[in-house]
Amino acid sequence: MDIIKLKTQPAVHSAAAVVGQKEFEGPLKDHFHSHSNDDMFGQDTFERAEAEMMRQALTFAMKSGGCKPEDINALFAGDLMNQCTSSSYGLLDFDIPYFGIYGACSTMAEGLILASLCMQGDSFKKTAVCAGSHYCTAERQFRSPLEYGGQRSPTSQWTATAAGAVILTDSIGDAYITEVLPGRSVSSGIKDISNMGAAMAPAAYDTLSRYFTQSGKEIKDFDLIATGDLGNEGHGIIYDLLSADGLGPGQIYNDCGLMLYDRNTQDVHAGGSGCGCSSAVFTGYIMNKFKKKEFKNVLLICTGALMSPLTLYQGEEIPGVAHLVHLSAERSV
Amino acid sequence: MDIIKLKTQPAVHSAAAVVGQKEFEGPLKDHFHSHSNDDMFGQDTFERAEAEMMRQALTFAMKSGGCKPEDINALFAGDLMNQCTSSSYGLLDFDIPYFGIYGACSTMAEGLILASLCMQGDSFKKTAVCAGSHYCTAERQFRSPLEYGGQRSPTSQWTATAAGAVILTDSIGDAYITEVLPGRSVSSGIKDISNMGAAMAPAAYDTLSRYFTQSGKEIKDFDLIATGDLGNEGHGIIYDLLSADGLGPGQIYNDCGLMLYDRNTQDVHAGGSGCGCSSAVFTGYIMNKFKKKEFKNVLLICTGALMSPLTLYQGEEIPGVAHLVHLSAERSV
Repeated sequence: MDIIKLKTQPAVHSAAAVVGQKEFEGPLKDHFHSHSNDDMFGQDTFERAEAEMMRQALTFAMKSGGCKPEDINALFAGDLMNQCTSSSYGLLDFDIPYFGIYGACSTMAEGLILASLCMQGDSFKKTAVCAGSHYCTAERQFRSPLEYGGQRSPTSQWTATAAGAVILTDSIGDAYITEVLPGRSVSSGIKDISNMGAAMAPAAYDTLSRYFTQSGKEIKDFDLIATGDLGNEGHGIIYDLLSADGLGPGQIYNDCGLMLYDRNTQDVHAGGSGCGCSSAVFTGYIMNKFKKKEFKNVLLICTGALMSPLTLYQGEEIPGVAHLVHLSAERSV
Repeated sequence: MDIIKLKTQPAVHSAAAVVGQKEFEGPLKDHFHSHSNDDMFGQDTFERAEAEMMRQALTFAMKSGGCKPEDINALFAGDLMNQCTSSSYGLLDFDIPYFGIYGACSTMAEGLILASLCMQGDSFKKTAVCAGSHYCTAERQFRSPLEYGGQRSPTSQWTATAAGAVILTDSIGDAYITEVLPGRSVSSGIKDISNMGAAMAPAAYDTLSRYFTQSGKEIKDFDLIATGDLGNEGHGIIYDLLSADGLGPGQIYNDCGLMLYDRNTQDVHAGGSGCGCSSAVFTGYIMNKFKKKEFKNVLLICTGALMSPLTLYQGEEIPGVAHLVHLSAERSV
């Protein structure tokens, strides 16, 4: 599959990121729309908190873009919960045609690609994409309840309590989606749920190497190349593979899981993860940089690990997928 | 949101349905590509059986359409498992750009709509959609393990062991997707996991009534209007609501959950359900009828219940969604 150069290049009309306390204490704190001191967002269960966070992210994105739900032709949303319930419950009241998607931590890029492709016809003028995750719901669903106090391994990542939402339009915005490259499922034998970075890295490399081979572009053509969220383990693997290909990733290549937290002062082991991690880094930090005209070209490669706790109990490997989106300050057509 | 009349009307190039033993004993047995006597599809766990069934459905659809994986630009797939693992594991080997979707039992129609919309640009020439479910995996995930032998309530439905796959192209086929109408999430207070038909019926009615109001069409313009899968409870509700609107649904309105099994001789209570139910009825029965030129116009309205066991434990309602696809024997543009 080749890079898709979009004919109708959708504008990121507005964006919003809503995060938890730990994420608000990180290096990107100035880029988020709002946060919850206790990660509960005024709700009484972790799951309702996650759903409410998704609702707030989409509400802020619509508000800052001056949109009403009836203006939006379709909503693409997903999360990590079983049956994607944070999306379906949190976004229930919006009355927008709803497409549930599942790409694990790659959900934001999957949504951006699907929304962009659907906007190639003239059926959709405005679409919304929303993705999020919550540390407390993810821990109890994928590992063990917080009360259990399980020891974390050094390669484990910290699921971000964060949600991001964007409104895409066919008019103007701070950034434009100019190219997309959907990912393929790739598995390379990792079975350790505490080393998702290594499990997802082969998928990220598959997508990135296809992109650079086909496009003929170089690392220096971009202000930032952000995978998300491979964390320290996966970032190191991709860094080495890109270096071996002679691409010289240098400081331009970073990972959303490393950008969201300060690993020296915050206890997140290998870095951040979860649908909310790349969503918040994109809708908060990256879009702010575009707004301030500090970024001209960014590659966002969201990575997802497509396992469930049950498949791991049954001894299966962890397949990964990585979807790539090229964001530019100007339309290239 | 209005009905979307597609400009590029994708052809259903080929289709295949793979089912379990009980489904093969039902009234539609002659319409399926293959079946497994013991529902295990040669695998050693129910989950692997479900994944293998998905793999077989896509393989048969590609084979009967004379396609190779490299011909297919994108694969849209989903199932009922936590984190959609039947799709991601079953379809891992195909090396096709992969979009995971989650629409519960509405997955086939969600996939058909997304694939059709993505084919409006000229980026995608050929796409695949695959959806499935397995009775044994669904029971242990959503209700209780089979070994427990729980009593089933009269309104409960039987999750179909079935998978369906289609290849859509921009060339010719036995049927064409001419119109689509994406569904909105609708909740109306049902909290009973054993009465999903009633929980999904409001979403089906929301989509159907928008369709008939906007299109000005009548029931008699169709050979079949199939919701899927509301079962006996939900079918009765929709029948009454369409009758009250003066539409006179008569024999033309049916439900995939009622079509897949013979409720008089097969112990399925209110009828079939699961992603595989509407997928197999569509890819098996409906497409065969198009192939034999017995159908000219069909409305397929796949319905999904967007809850998880956890949200029900927490006292939440069950939201539903219903996506509509209009299939015609000829392109209307």
